[in-house]
Amino acid sequence: MTIRFALLGAGRIGKVHAKAVSANPAAKLVAVADAMPAAADAIASQYGCEVRTIDQILRSKDIDAVVICTPTDTHADLIEKFSAAKKAIFCEKPIDLSVKRVQDCLKVVAKNKTVLMVGFNRRFDPHFMAVRAAIDAGEIGDVEMVTIVSRDPGAPPIEYVKRSGGIFRDMTIHDFDMARFLLGEEIATVSAQASVLVDKAIGKAGDYDSVSVMLTTKSGKHATISNSRRATYGYDQRIEAHGSKGSVAAENQRAVSIEVATAKGYTRPPLHDFFMTRYTEAYANEIAAFINAIGGKAKASPSGADGLAALALADAAVKSVKEGRAVKVSEVLA
Amino acid sequence: MTIRFALLGAGRIGKVHAKAVSANPAAKLVAVADAMPAAADAIASQYGCEVRTIDQILRSKDIDAVVICTPTDTHADLIEKFSAAKKAIFCEKPIDLSVKRVQDCLKVVAKNKTVLMVGFNRRFDPHFMAVRAAIDAGEIGDVEMVTIVSRDPGAPPIEYVKRSGGIFRDMTIHDFDMARFLLGEEIATVSAQASVLVDKAIGKAGDYDSVSVMLTTKSGKHATISNSRRATYGYDQRIEAHGSKGSVAAENQRAVSIEVATAKGYTRPPLHDFFMTRYTEAYANEIAAFINAIGGKAKASPSGADGLAALALADAAVKSVKEGRAVKVSEVLA
Amino acid sequence: MTIRFALLGAGRIGKVHAKAVSANPAAKLVAVADAMPAAADAIASQYGCEVRTIDQILRSKDIDAVVICTPTDTHADLIEKFSAAKKAIFCEKPIDLSVKRVQDCLKVVAKNKTVLMVGFNRRFDPHFMAVRAAIDAGEIGDVEMVTIVSRDPGAPPIEYVKRSGGIFRDMTIHDFDMARFLLGEEIATVSAQASVLVDKAIGKAGDYDSVSVMLTTKSGKHATISNSRRATYGYDQRIEAHGSKGSVAAENQRAVSIEVATAKGYTRPPLHDFFMTRYTEAYANEIAAFINAIGGKAKASPSGADGLAALALADAAVKSVKEGRAVKVSEVLA
Amino acid sequence: MTIRFALLGAGRIGKVHAKAVSANPAAKLVAVADAMPAAADAIASQYGCEVRTIDQILRSKDIDAVVICTPTDTHADLIEKFSAAKKAIFCEKPIDLSVKRVQDCLKVVAKNKTVLMVGFNRRFDPHFMAVRAAIDAGEIGDVEMVTIVSRDPGAPPIEYVKRSGGIFRDMTIHDFDMARFLLGEEIATVSAQASVLVDKAIGKAGDYDSVSVMLTTKSGKHATISNSRRATYGYDQRIEAHGSKGSVAAENQRAVSIEVATAKGYTRPPLHDFFMTRYTEAYANEIAAFINAIGGKAKASPSGADGLAALALADAAVKSVKEGRAVKVSEVLA
Repeated sequence: MTIRFALLGAGRIGKVHAKAVSANPAAKLVAVADAMPAAADAIASQYGCEVRTIDQILRSKDIDAVVICTPTDTHADLIEKFSAAKKAIFCEKPIDLSVKRVQDCLKVVAKNKTVLMVGFNRRFDPHFMAVRAAIDAGEIGDVEMVTIVSRDPGAPPIEYVKRSGGIFRDMTIHDFDMARFLLGEEIATVSAQASVLVDKAIGKAGDYDSVSVMLTTKSGKHATISNSRRATYGYDQRIEAHGSKGSVAAENQRAVSIEVATAKGYTRPPLHDFFMTRYTEAYANEIAAFINAIGGKAKASPSGADGLAALALADAAVKSVKEGRAVKVSEVLA
Repeated sequence: MTIRFALLGAGRIGKVHAKAVSANPAAKLVAVADAMPAAADAIASQYGCEVRTIDQILRSKDIDAVVICTPTDTHADLIEKFSAAKKAIFCEKPIDLSVKRVQDCLKVVAKNKTVLMVGFNRRFDPHFMAVRAAIDAGEIGDVEMVTIVSRDPGAPPIEYVKRSGGIFRDMTIHDFDMARFLLGEEIATVSAQASVLVDKAIGKAGDYDSVSVMLTTKSGKHATISNSRRATYGYDQRIEAHGSKGSVAAENQRAVSIEVATAKGYTRPPLHDFFMTRYTEAYANEIAAFINAIGGKAKASPSGADGLAALALADAAVKSVKEGRAVKVSEVLA
Repeated sequence: MTIRFALLGAGRIGKVHAKAVSANPAAKLVAVADAMPAAADAIASQYGCEVRTIDQILRSKDIDAVVICTPTDTHADLIEKFSAAKKAIFCEKPIDLSVKRVQDCLKVVAKNKTVLMVGFNRRFDPHFMAVRAAIDAGEIGDVEMVTIVSRDPGAPPIEYVKRSGGIFRDMTIHDFDMARFLLGEEIATVSAQASVLVDKAIGKAGDYDSVSVMLTTKSGKHATISNSRRATYGYDQRIEAHGSKGSVAAENQRAVSIEVATAKGYTRPPLHDFFMTRYTEAYANEIAAFINAIGGKAKASPSGADGLAALALADAAVKSVKEGRAVKVSEVLA
Repeated sequence: MTIRFALLGAGRIGKVHAKAVSANPAAKLVAVADAMPAAADAIASQYGCEVRTIDQILRSKDIDAVVICTPTDTHADLIEKFSAAKKAIFCEKPIDLSVKRVQDCLKVVAKNKTVLMVGFNRRFDPHFMAVRAAIDAGEIGDVEMVTIVSRDPGAPPIEYVKRSGGIFRDMTIHDFDMARFLLGEEIATVSAQASVLVDKAIGKAGDYDSVSVMLTTKSGKHATISNSRRATYGYDQRIEAHGSKGSVAAENQRAVSIEVATAKGYTRPPLHDFFMTRYTEAYANEIAAFINAIGGKAKASPSGADGLAALALADAAVKSVKEGRAVKVSEVLA
């Protein structure tokens, strides 16, 4: 059975999903909607699908599932509407910038028994999946300390920064999810420190560009996260899990793996430019997992609850920076 | 403009090309032919194309190009027929096991001005292309010594070995092409040694499973090739070019790049299983290059002459082993 | 001119220094003292020096410099005595477990104008020195975020733990110094979290075995430290500095760098056992630097002030864990 | 018991051995001889030994062992003299450039039952020893194909080249020994090709600077060797053994192992400058092995017979280049 998709939002991440959906033999991209006609047209002509309005899609009987890639502040409303319309929903992170709003939205989803999956693409990266598989296979014993280094090649435009909810909710949120994914235990406390080292304009917009985070679980496991909005050498994405019997790490990826040796030394190329090329396989796997969930072959994961949990960690990090103390996650979920 | 393809031969390598053609937005797989109906049917149903006989395809007006993946002893005849029918031709290596037969076939192709490309897929591997690009950019100065290590994960079935033309024409031929690709100068002499270390049955079939080759060009550049039909750790494919200003190498590829550290040491996974997964991108790039050549955007390369040159090196290697001496390539091209 | 040394304390680290001193052509090991006669005798017979008491050494005219490797609680007293006796002093870290005691001790050293160097051996590791040199050469621009992963192969005996002053003062203190070394700016605040994951006996002794630390400087630079008392794969010692123009890292070291490839994957040996083999060159360089300082060719560095600074960070970390908040370094130096 | 050494020849390699002998606690460097008084004086003053003539050393009762580092054409005579004088002998490779002369010399050594060890230092490199140990432990099954890449950072002075006996006897001889060390079976045939790519003056001197060699054993095992007199990126020394169950390789070594990442990519420093720094540990281990052999704890290895075998391979390689054919080792040993 082929799952018929509509894409809501034809921007940068929308294009990534349009490609992943179109390449999947079990899926068909039927329609695309975007406030900008040109953006929707581009997708439509590239993948041979129709341009429709969101309302048309909502009423379309030939659509089984939607991929929500619109601006964040529309996510929760769209989820509720398409949940009511009995469509399966894949939503880019975050569901909303407000924990309360997410909690309400998830109640609607639960009531309607909608298949809802949240776009934490990194869980589907083959290398990170292999790290998780090594842990599951018992190769490193009990996981004790997770180390995540995650650096963007460059800062986003200031207009984006202003609407992003801040670095913790926009960027670190992926690392919060990865920490949960690898620790296998809920986070109890969050300590964070943040500064502006890359671009003063980010500071003026009330955000940070360089942050460090420490997490603990109830049983005392640790995770540390290091984020910067700048890495001259490409998209830096490393994870490592240290356990009682050993350690497992996924190293950085590059498009080509040659090495040139000269009198100046041995040089390998920079890393991938950014997520579109670094996580190509992850996006394909993610859509495949969503299709499996629609088909009932697996639970939708990461779930809405995973989306909520990561957002709560971001809120706790914001609070920790502000108050200079370790914040309990329960404080921000109250 | 979309190029309409027919696939001749639906075996292991035929499937690889069917996938590459289908995934290319400028191509359409229209028909498939195979002596085994089940094999053709499988491709037809997976990619939504028709099953036709080779003769039907020869007469089909809706076919612009053919991909020849049939047994080697049919290649030259098919090339001549489809050349006469004015189809563009992509042919798996080798064109034939006889230098004379290849020379005759290429005359037909030349007369008909057919676009003919030979399937030396490794030239399209992104990593090997990057090696070539580094050389072209002058990063290592003049290329002086090329080192190729190429090992299959396991030996093919004896029935395959018997029809293969021997390891030099079947396996080393790729490395001969790669040596030519990287040296950028014609090979003058070939010295080879060969033995049976992996499987005695291969020896009984009159072939070898472990070979070493040294090549020289007229100006004195060197290449060495080391081949084995067995590598427990996966498909071992390494090339290195050493030059007057430095060196450039492409390292082995693996499906996932994690590393597990335990008391026993640091372990990375084995390499790719074999060419189907190792050279996925190369096969896609290869078909794209063929399409470009059909469209007149580039010369068909590797060409029939490249196919002939590599075969001549294989013949010279066979002669070198037999006679225990360095063989001039001119001796086998007479 | 040869510097004549006496070694105070012939235990594990004493042996390391005895070897470094003996191998240095500008030094001569003249005497050794230890409360355990057998330990002193072993050094004496291996390196051809005399056994003397500490008091004898204090009065020895043929001794220019002492290396203090006795238990921590004797360091400050010995420094003061040998400072008064006009000997150059190399003291293992920490000078004392009390910030106040260290401050008093350093006043005596200052008054006597003694050459005092503190044993932060890692500053002399060739790889870490090369990281510092790359920073000094401007290769990564301004340092912004330092990441340190430092894991011991196994926990020390509980008796050692009890007298150690706790993991922050015993183990993390090296990483505090390394953070200062690489950041090139004083630390302003310390946030730490700590747990017992390796050995419950360590917890019963009032200490931790797994800690994470975040540091900030006044200008907003970050450092993170991850420590564990257990690493099955050897002595894990990694540092990385991320800057405005790039990043520089020193990878782990192993005694032999072979790689074995089998059907199970590619395996490299575990890391060095522990500091005695990992930092062999560092200990030799450290003694050479001390000799240079004695000869007036360079300032004694790391200095007593560096020892104090690292201890203050340890105190702040202890306080941070206890109070669940970011602690200003100024709070513990008051 | 301390072994008392005399050093014959205080040139570049003589200095390396003087250091290794002096650093060994079981050895004492008593005397040094050199035709150039300044060279001998330098060693004498650095290591506190006496300058003597070779004849004096021959008659010295306080000398147990000699290290011969004089020009090659004196080696065989010195070995015979010191063998008659009942001294243990360590001789730099080669024993002589003439197979016949070496054979005669070894007869004298055998008659006198002298301990004679030949300076194939690479057998004592910890990394190459670990490769051999992995083979001995059965980790890769039966060794089948050995690959050696060995490149000097730069060509030696032409005067050196003229007296060297040619690249095969001067440089490749180390790789011939390494091939024998790793294959564990005598070489049966040698095929070689050689050219002048680095420096035309080397060609005018009748020598080559770029050579490739293939070796076979009676049972059909292979080795390939690639040599160049130029590597801009340092002293390139790689070995790999491929076997029935896997493969083992020793990677290149560098003085510091940092990596700098910038917009241009990831860069590691060049390799060691040359053998003096690359093989520091090997030279120390080599002298220790010689001392063990003198003490009767082990056989002197590599032996005079090993020196002869490697020289015969060099002779066969010269013959192979000249005659363009595979040469049997038995042809040059007749």
